[in-house]
Amino acid sequence: MTGREGKRMTTTKELCERLDALEKKARIAEDYVAIANLQAAYGYYVDKGLWDKAADLFASDGTLEIAGRGVYVGQDRVRQYLHQLPEYGDGTIFNHMQLQPVIHIDSEAGTAKGRWRTLMMVGFLNKEGRWGEATYENAYVREGEKWRIASLHGIINFYCEYDEGWHRGGVPLLRSTAGIAPDLPQSFEYEAHPKAVIAPFHYDEV
Amino acid sequence: MTGREGKRMTTTKELCERLDALEKKARIAEDYVAIANLQAAYGYYVDKGLWDKAADLFASDGTLEIAGRGVYVGQDRVRQYLHQLPEYGDGTIFNHMQLQPVIHIDSEAGTAKGRWRTLMMVGFLNKEGRWGEATYENAYVREGEKWRIASLHGIINFYCEYDEGWHRGGVPLLRSTAGIAPDLPQSFEYEAHPKAVIAPFHYDEV
Amino acid sequence: MTGREGKRMTTTKELCERLDALEKKARIAEDYVAIANLQAAYGYYVDKGLWDKAADLFASDGTLEIAGRGVYVGQDRVRQYLHQLPEYGDGTIFNHMQLQPVIHIDSEAGTAKGRWRTLMMVGFLNKEGRWGEATYENAYVREGEKWRIASLHGIINFYCEYDEGWHRGGVPLLRSTAGIAPDLPQSFEYEAHPKAVIAPFHYDEV
Repeated sequence: MTGREGKRMTTTKELCERLDALEKKARIAEDYVAIANLQAAYGYYVDKGLWDKAADLFASDGTLEIAGRGVYVGQDRVRQYLHQLPEYGDGTIFNHMQLQPVIHIDSEAGTAKGRWRTLMMVGFLNKEGRWGEATYENAYVREGEKWRIASLHGIINFYCEYDEGWHRGGVPLLRSTAGIAPDLPQSFEYEAHPKAVIAPFHYDEV
Repeated sequence: MTGREGKRMTTTKELCERLDALEKKARIAEDYVAIANLQAAYGYYVDKGLWDKAADLFASDGTLEIAGRGVYVGQDRVRQYLHQLPEYGDGTIFNHMQLQPVIHIDSEAGTAKGRWRTLMMVGFLNKEGRWGEATYENAYVREGEKWRIASLHGIINFYCEYDEGWHRGGVPLLRSTAGIAPDLPQSFEYEAHPKAVIAPFHYDEV
Repeated sequence: MTGREGKRMTTTKELCERLDALEKKARIAEDYVAIANLQAAYGYYVDKGLWDKAADLFASDGTLEIAGRGVYVGQDRVRQYLHQLPEYGDGTIFNHMQLQPVIHIDSEAGTAKGRWRTLMMVGFLNKEGRWGEATYENAYVREGEKWRIASLHGIINFYCEYDEGWHRGGVPLLRSTAGIAPDLPQSFEYEAHPKAVIAPFHYDEV
């Protein structure tokens, strides 16, 4: 089919088909970087309590569901949820490291799914220090030229007190938020460590 | 050489050569995502004791070597090895976070190498809680349209008791498995922390 | 415009323009992998005190700035700085895990910026064990066919004693090095945890 190998003339139609295929693949490569950047950016904003910046990363109808606290629907509600979290400042650590992506992209549909994990270090000086770790099963959507979070769903594997470690049990899931009720109930019931929990996978095989 | 800049006619042969080069690069970009997804998926399966899912990620003649426990050759033997590990369930944590890839791909050969690291959190309720960290030097192979693990080699940098930390020493390497002898001896002798160990690099420069 | 859809003849000029655009995108995809590999490689070298290997990853006029220790200008000075750090060997752990990249590339200019974070485990047997975490805001430059670090700037979020955790405060920033004065003062003043610190972002949005 190529000019080098073909005995017959390569047609313009053939050239265009190869270009079409390449343009699709080039778009997927761009999408991958954009989605990886997007989720990483979310983590950096959460670390520092930059809630408006974090909310801006959600699609207009994007959803957020963390632990057993129900689902918040739409960027405005995600913003409200985030703003009722504690403020970052002296004495606090809210580190949410965003790690280990498995990303599948349907570039033509402008949608994608990603499994990630976060290793969390949470602290309030002289009050509380905790390790935590959660799996995310997220969805993404292309809005115009930007990728945005269509749904962020964090399933907590464990929280533990720094002074105790995970071998002495775990901190139970927070079941409600102080001031803002969710729009929908949580997707499924579970308990974190010491109970076993396996976040559903968006893929059967890689 | 391009239509815009060239004084002379661009030939079909030239167009095809550019397409050939681009198709190779597009394939490498796809390979990168596939390999990153593959190794990340391995980690998620190990976390939760999904041993059959983990074994399925190995090539039919893929090998596994972890710590000082020897080499298991072939997907069936890898599966056997994995199945003799403890079961995931209430009270256990087997987190193996897959981090920091350095990946080099020979796309035309269908082979690749990757250096990764895993940060491990292992726990059995009321019995044992450990931090650990290892370097992987892995190889990958394309089988049909799928990338698979050709060899996974984990070199342990340290294991320590959560209650002790790494500054009071480390847990010695486990030298054998309970019920299943390896097919080959380990690649090289070493001890983990507090002994120094540097996993060999698959690259001289990046 | 494509052969499949177009009513009129696709011109060679049009084909070449599509090839030009694709070649630019293919280069960016290559750049992304090269930069991700580069920063990850830096971490593996630092882990093991391979200071010459780490220094080789800097551009000839590359700079290094870590914590509050000032700026070292040029690969030779970076090398000197690195060589005055403690030696890796029995009893030491210098783990600097390189995580969570947000990378923006100007491929035609041959420049890029990347936000990363490092989770650090530092230890000296029977003397000191610490957790630490820092944000990097780095720049990269293409030199010939290789990407190199144009500037590495690590802003420490916290260091704490393993035995204390981050909820009992933090270890103050090291303000000077034993034997080698910096070429330039640090970019900005800050204190790490328990003081709040937000590393500047190289991007307004992703």
